[in-house]
Amino acid sequence: MGVKLGILGLGTVGTGTVQLLQDLVGRNPLLQEIEIYRVGVRSLDKIREVELPAEVLTTDLEAIVSDPAVDIVVEVMGGLEPARSLILQALKNGKHVVTANKAAIARFGAEIFTTANQAGVYVMLEAAVGGGIPVIQPLKHSLRVNRIHTITGIVNGTTNYILTRMQTEGSDFSDVLADAQRLGYAEADPTADVEGLDAADKIAILASLGFDGRINLQDVYCEGIRQVSKTDITYAEKLGFVIKLLAIAKQSTPSSPSSSLSVRVHPTLVPKAHPLASINGVYNAILVEGEPIGEVMFFGPGAGAGATASAVTSDILNLVAVLKTSTVNPNPLLTCGHQDYCQIAPMTELVTRFYARFLTKDQPGVIGKLGTCFGNHGVSLESVVQTGFQGGLAEIVVVTHDVREGDFHQALAEIRNLEAIDSIPSLLRVL
Amino acid sequence: MGVKLGILGLGTVGTGTVQLLQDLVGRNPLLQEIEIYRVGVRSLDKIREVELPAEVLTTDLEAIVSDPAVDIVVEVMGGLEPARSLILQALKNGKHVVTANKAAIARFGAEIFTTANQAGVYVMLEAAVGGGIPVIQPLKHSLRVNRIHTITGIVNGTTNYILTRMQTEGSDFSDVLADAQRLGYAEADPTADVEGLDAADKIAILASLGFDGRINLQDVYCEGIRQVSKTDITYAEKLGFVIKLLAIAKQSTPSSPSSSLSVRVHPTLVPKAHPLASINGVYNAILVEGEPIGEVMFFGPGAGAGATASAVTSDILNLVAVLKTSTVNPNPLLTCGHQDYCQIAPMTELVTRFYARFLTKDQPGVIGKLGTCFGNHGVSLESVVQTGFQGGLAEIVVVTHDVREGDFHQALAEIRNLEAIDSIPSLLRVL
Repeated sequence: MGVKLGILGLGTVGTGTVQLLQDLVGRNPLLQEIEIYRVGVRSLDKIREVELPAEVLTTDLEAIVSDPAVDIVVEVMGGLEPARSLILQALKNGKHVVTANKAAIARFGAEIFTTANQAGVYVMLEAAVGGGIPVIQPLKHSLRVNRIHTITGIVNGTTNYILTRMQTEGSDFSDVLADAQRLGYAEADPTADVEGLDAADKIAILASLGFDGRINLQDVYCEGIRQVSKTDITYAEKLGFVIKLLAIAKQSTPSSPSSSLSVRVHPTLVPKAHPLASINGVYNAILVEGEPIGEVMFFGPGAGAGATASAVTSDILNLVAVLKTSTVNPNPLLTCGHQDYCQIAPMTELVTRFYARFLTKDQPGVIGKLGTCFGNHGVSLESVVQTGFQGGLAEIVVVTHDVREGDFHQALAEIRNLEAIDSIPSLLRVL
Repeated sequence: MGVKLGILGLGTVGTGTVQLLQDLVGRNPLLQEIEIYRVGVRSLDKIREVELPAEVLTTDLEAIVSDPAVDIVVEVMGGLEPARSLILQALKNGKHVVTANKAAIARFGAEIFTTANQAGVYVMLEAAVGGGIPVIQPLKHSLRVNRIHTITGIVNGTTNYILTRMQTEGSDFSDVLADAQRLGYAEADPTADVEGLDAADKIAILASLGFDGRINLQDVYCEGIRQVSKTDITYAEKLGFVIKLLAIAKQSTPSSPSSSLSVRVHPTLVPKAHPLASINGVYNAILVEGEPIGEVMFFGPGAGAGATASAVTSDILNLVAVLKTSTVNPNPLLTCGHQDYCQIAPMTELVTRFYARFLTKDQPGVIGKLGTCFGNHGVSLESVVQTGFQGGLAEIVVVTHDVREGDFHQALAEIRNLEAIDSIPSLLRVL
């Protein structure tokens, strides 16, 4: 029994981690050196799915992070406070920290990593993004030998589950959401998932690692999936796309070291042949493009007790291995080396394709007028479809070629003023 | 300039690695501490795609592995000898080794890792499997906290390219192979790829890491893709499958620590909805299934100068980081911990589904007779198709449910004796 863990939280992930550590046959033998020394919980009376000696459970979380016997603090309680304070205290007390807390890392990463560096300890966060998928470590330890161009992820299982069911069943967002809540795939308050906030936290973390700089969470553009209608899914399907909530971090000119990034979360039309198009249900996937590697994709369960416990335990395993080496200097791949903020370009500067759906009066020449307005602002069209009618109005769908987002919005402003245009119910980006 | 590399070989991978290391903008800054100190080549007169100072190039490879100034030897020459001897010598001289040489590792891994452990240095082999895909490190450092059930890979780009083209074009194996050779996707002597030997080396390495034991390469069952016909691809398509050359390592009873493995390479019918079914062309993918993680898949370019250079350089990066830590004891995740051999079950014990194609005389009752023979040996059928005729003979295709391979072959032996059976031109396993 060499390495003592202090686990903060015994919810889904904490329970999964304890279960894994209590059943070691067939796993890496190094895990046998771990002792579950303390587990901090809110209530000692609650019935647990795991058996732990009475002296291990405690409601005094502060005592865990300041106990000199604890080597590694495993923060799996979630939420911003007291998680942030406990993490900082643990680090100041010279303890390595493993956390699954994307919200805390995305918001307080700078403070947390600075504290860790000062104390000479490590913060590990494999479980913060992509559930069980090993992606943080490959990004830090392997892929950064590449010049990273783009990181594109389906990093929120709830929204991917909802969009997949809308796609396969032709259902409405609100019906599928209600069902997902009933089945436990969406939370009672689905805001963080559905509005893209959870995905924004995760892409901020991935971007920070991939592009070696801090990311200000306020700079991450974020659009959720509430406005995705089954009409748009049907049009997308006809045009050869599926709609996915993508989290994207992209360097505008990868060869220039001072190039700015776009970091964003939004529903996106993905060509059906694209590797991310076939990631369905609660699965997550992260696609990394760089030079000279090309494209690499990681795919797996984005959530769940077992998958997340696997990621948490892999971080613990790596720390146990480090503790055995009696290292003199910190390993630069395990510390956070950057202190500068990445430069994030405004969305108006983004160059992307767009999908837009217009409801127009059923009169001749409307497509011509649309085309003229687009042309005035340098927007060229890849495809135009006019098939449906909605309540006496003609429905026109266009997909553009690559265009500066600012120019596209200027064209739309002009189009909105056309007498023939009733409304523009949908506007989505295209990968 | 802290860490001195001695690179053995300046072919495709060596050149790609030098190019990467000579162009560091936007990559991990730790790479700036690397000096390309010596590069061993066969001829000094050959024109190179990279510029290196004259004193760096040498034909004396022995001198590189024994030069006290060299910290890391990067073996990218390939082949068994002198690669094996040079690796062993480098290790004995206290140098860490990075190698892309799956053939040498699969054959001499025991000797190489024992030598490395004795010398207190590391052997890194990310580039040996899956080209640029980070899979070795995730397997060693993360996924082994799971009880691994199965590792299934498309790990040979050449055969996947050939099968993909046969599938999409309806072409014959020999025509596509000839074209692949012309285009540089297959070598002049395609034996190692086409017969599955390269894939066997790679699954032996993955199995060794995933199941924590040595693998005797002779125990790896290996069947190539020469016998895959366009007829079978067409039938597979109709039945909802694509044919892929899979490399599989699977534990028969995952919960038992003494359970035996099956380790094998063979063309396989893969259900179209399976994640590996959509891996096309020269791409590779490795799917790992374990408890509690579930399924995780890694996907990316399986070969090529840039992708392999990325993997080689990621190993160098990790070693540079380790060298900076002034470690006292070796990191147990970077050494090879096992010394026992995995127990490999004979193929007759394998439980799998089968696809078989029969040519029979066009007479009544043949399907009944087939069914009786299968029933005699406990083989139950999932589907039976009789559509085609070939030269006056009826063609019958069956897909079985799971069956012990030994029982299936006994049933086939009985079927071969039936008067109505002309031949059994195809026999493939089904995932």
